[in-house]
Amino acid sequence: MLDFLYHAPTKVYFGKEKHKEIGNIVKGYGYRTIMMQYGKESIKKSGLYDEVMNSLREHEITVIEMGGVEPNPKVSFVREAIKVAKENKVEMILAVGGGSVIDASKTTAVGAKTDYDIWDFSTRKRTPSDALPVGCILTLSAAGSEMSSSAVLTNTELNMKRGFNSEFNRCQFAICNPELTYTVNRYQTACGIVDIMAHTMERYFTVCEPTDLTDQIAESILKSVVAAGRVLMENPCDYEARATMMWASSLSHNDLTGCGRENTLAVHQLEHALSGEFDFIAHGAGLAVLFPAWARTVFHVNPSRFAQFARRVWDVEQEDDETTALMGIERMEAFFKEMEMPLTLREFGIDESSAERLAELCTFGKQRTVKSYIEMDFDVIKNIFKSCY
Amino acid sequence: MLDFLYHAPTKVYFGKEKHKEIGNIVKGYGYRTIMMQYGKESIKKSGLYDEVMNSLREHEITVIEMGGVEPNPKVSFVREAIKVAKENKVEMILAVGGGSVIDASKTTAVGAKTDYDIWDFSTRKRTPSDALPVGCILTLSAAGSEMSSSAVLTNTELNMKRGFNSEFNRCQFAICNPELTYTVNRYQTACGIVDIMAHTMERYFTVCEPTDLTDQIAESILKSVVAAGRVLMENPCDYEARATMMWASSLSHNDLTGCGRENTLAVHQLEHALSGEFDFIAHGAGLAVLFPAWARTVFHVNPSRFAQFARRVWDVEQEDDETTALMGIERMEAFFKEMEMPLTLREFGIDESSAERLAELCTFGKQRTVKSYIEMDFDVIKNIFKSCY
Repeated sequence: MLDFLYHAPTKVYFGKEKHKEIGNIVKGYGYRTIMMQYGKESIKKSGLYDEVMNSLREHEITVIEMGGVEPNPKVSFVREAIKVAKENKVEMILAVGGGSVIDASKTTAVGAKTDYDIWDFSTRKRTPSDALPVGCILTLSAAGSEMSSSAVLTNTELNMKRGFNSEFNRCQFAICNPELTYTVNRYQTACGIVDIMAHTMERYFTVCEPTDLTDQIAESILKSVVAAGRVLMENPCDYEARATMMWASSLSHNDLTGCGRENTLAVHQLEHALSGEFDFIAHGAGLAVLFPAWARTVFHVNPSRFAQFARRVWDVEQEDDETTALMGIERMEAFFKEMEMPLTLREFGIDESSAERLAELCTFGKQRTVKSYIEMDFDVIKNIFKSCY
Repeated sequence: MLDFLYHAPTKVYFGKEKHKEIGNIVKGYGYRTIMMQYGKESIKKSGLYDEVMNSLREHEITVIEMGGVEPNPKVSFVREAIKVAKENKVEMILAVGGGSVIDASKTTAVGAKTDYDIWDFSTRKRTPSDALPVGCILTLSAAGSEMSSSAVLTNTELNMKRGFNSEFNRCQFAICNPELTYTVNRYQTACGIVDIMAHTMERYFTVCEPTDLTDQIAESILKSVVAAGRVLMENPCDYEARATMMWASSLSHNDLTGCGRENTLAVHQLEHALSGEFDFIAHGAGLAVLFPAWARTVFHVNPSRFAQFARRVWDVEQEDDETTALMGIERMEAFFKEMEMPLTLREFGIDESSAERLAELCTFGKQRTVKSYIEMDFDVIKNIFKSCY
């Protein structure tokens, strides 16, 4: 077990109807002027917008609205939001949405406390030393941003998607009502399942061992979301499955699954290149394509680890670790297929010729490698992308 | 899954040598005058005291010392500490020790911010609305107080041991170096294993279901500490086992194992009567005697739950749930024996005649019942104690 720092201070209000307490919660912290960020108009159609606004108004909270956060939130939106937040002296940012909205809110919160450009933080040129508090009402179980220390932005001018971690990126509170995710469609639900699994597996597949308690917790999350995913393909309004998925989303990425282990998020770095270049690709769908390809590239470095994954999560047992490991990867891929996820880049309409460009993006023009069991340089990464067609 | 509030904000510095950073950590928070509480002289013999004091002095922290916290910390000690804390205007309390020292520090921290007697908070006559910050350097993996919201005090005048939960009882930070527990003897190590298991099982054995993710996390903790306990009986200086035990201690009682479930801590209430009356009984040893007796009394209400425990934690499978459940309880008891724990009250030199007195203490003189699958009234509790002789 490696030394670690664990700090997941987000206060989680979990359960039915919880979002209706927002006014009281915000007032409890003493905030009077807040910025509310959200995505599309869907929260208006669903009635969530009205319920939230009513509760806030009831508690005399002044709300500056910033709707229109896009999936893969854009740095241009955040720059505008920072300007508005400063002008209006908002005291906190409330994100009503999924990971994209929360990440936009987190970066707005950092930007509102500095005069430097927020993109400098995304590229890690600068490190935050302050931020406005952020709270969220979660409407999508996937990114785990509600409890995580990470925030990802996309810069469309540079075709780049970059994330940074900071203690200032932790939400002060998260309101998690699984009922708000009943209307999430099949595709987005499946993308969420993959994303939660990926956050868990990224930490699970690193070199340091043993960390049996952390392993078992990670395996618990994986088994639970696999089961929940299967239920939700049949019945999208199953409360228990939605609740499992939502809580797993938070736990998978709040650092619990990485305690005592290395933290690289290697496949995420490949996926960020992919959906940075092709904005229409949902993060979870990109991960579903890349994870098996990455696993097949590196599993031989630690077959016993991949075999443990196969045995404990997928319940397979073959004559040796290598065969068991490969069978585990196959099961994972088959599960993604069962969840109706794409398994090749071809399904996105992307052809083999983009492998080089993606590998370049991923290595910042061959200037870095991505470490994950092996040092993945430009050629290794290009081959992973190539194997996805 | 029931609605829940999850808030475990303690910052955990986990790993080797971490306690040597104490001065820097305290200074980072801006505290200049602190109270340091500890138990016996053992931290002086081990060299820990000097290492901590040197680090604090190096960072120019003024330290008011309050040594001498006893196991089952006494309200009289805490009253004195509160007086000293107020006189010296200390800004935070640093606990160097195990659960007893941390609980003394937590209650001192609450008491330092009020003029009411601290025992009124233990009896829940009053609720805290403020507290000094508390940090700890953990030297014993057992009570989980380093991340929990609970604090337990003993009132020797009244022969009562009472705990209360509050958000103000959460440590601001916890320094967890497993190496500091190498010198914990066999008996106290075993008591710790039982306590960690009990914190997990108390939440596991409640009526609400399904909560499969929480279940699996609880089972992960149980399996991990059973394995760690066995290793430590052979080699008390096994770093990985000590680390597993320490992290499990924190996770078992920081509320993670109770998410979505009822929280009663019923067996703890019986044990508090026991070690409140017989101060020489270690909490973990009392739990080792009481847990199997309680389980045999109530398992018939939910045999499938106890059977799940038997299957997943103890790997037993019998023809039906009832038999499987009973076999699981037997395995748990056999494990406690393997850990050299007492299995009867007779082993403490206590005879059957005290059952009535203990049941009275537990029910506050027949004025309340303890809920745990069944409403345990005076007679049920008396019979549980009787079955322990």
